[in-house]
Amino acid sequence: MEGEPQSFLERAIALAVANARDSGGGPFAALVVKDGRVVAEGVNLVTSANDPTAHAEVVAIRAACRALGHFQLEGCEIYSSCEPCPMCLGAIYWARPARVYYAATAADASRAGFDDSFIYRQIALAHGERAIPMIALATPQALQPFAAWRAKAGRKAY
Amino acid sequence: MEGEPQSFLERAIALAVANARDSGGGPFAALVVKDGRVVAEGVNLVTSANDPTAHAEVVAIRAACRALGHFQLEGCEIYSSCEPCPMCLGAIYWARPARVYYAATAADASRAGFDDSFIYRQIALAHGERAIPMIALATPQALQPFAAWRAKAGRKAY
Repeated sequence: MEGEPQSFLERAIALAVANARDSGGGPFAALVVKDGRVVAEGVNLVTSANDPTAHAEVVAIRAACRALGHFQLEGCEIYSSCEPCPMCLGAIYWARPARVYYAATAADASRAGFDDSFIYRQIALAHGERAIPMIALATPQALQPFAAWRAKAGRKAY
Repeated sequence: MEGEPQSFLERAIALAVANARDSGGGPFAALVVKDGRVVAEGVNLVTSANDPTAHAEVVAIRAACRALGHFQLEGCEIYSSCEPCPMCLGAIYWARPARVYYAATAADASRAGFDDSFIYRQIALAHGERAIPMIALATPQALQPFAAWRAKAGRKAY
């Protein structure tokens, strides 16, 4: 089994090369692997699908969950051609795979013009200091959704 | 126009209540608004769609981009029933709306059992200290995707 992570990463990198070269898509790809088997693959589809959330990891996570019929990736590994951006890192935490392997670093991506560090820095700022203003509006009904959730019989936590 | 943000937020909250009450879905909803008009709505579909990335903001952003035929939400506002989690915050930065309004705070969500603060804290940690291990594997091909991207004529930056 030694060397397998490397071969899955090489597969992800090859998909990323093909996505950029053949489709002009973002040069990123990811695999979800369970028990040594590829469950799903994803490539960056942001511009081709007009979907800013269609990063490789998100695409692969969504496809893997469809394939597994569950909203969690327990016992799975994610192999990404590049270190995940903050959005994808959040998606990874919600999907809860066992671990993540990646090849290129965020610094490599930044040198290629894909600078996630801006978003990483923004997350650490207070809302009022962010480039995209985040405005809390006190709303009397704000807690009603949580009350409806607590009152719902058979609700499924996630 | 005074008071409009409040009414869009109230609409988002009503959708969140309905999603929890009628579908047993996560008690969250979001709208994308452009020029005072609702472009798209989204509710949390994590458990119903088996998609851990289907948070209300992500669903609304994807639907709005489909409706607008573009992968950016320039000049749009997002109204969320609740303060965005790190994944959604990342998605917001990639979609680049003008601003975000929200009603319930992360602290409100945490008290209701939806604790994003764990992920916010994880993002700030070094890779080796994270609950989900992030493992960089030096791979000779790691930079090939970026080379393919730079070599691609007519590539569309995002």
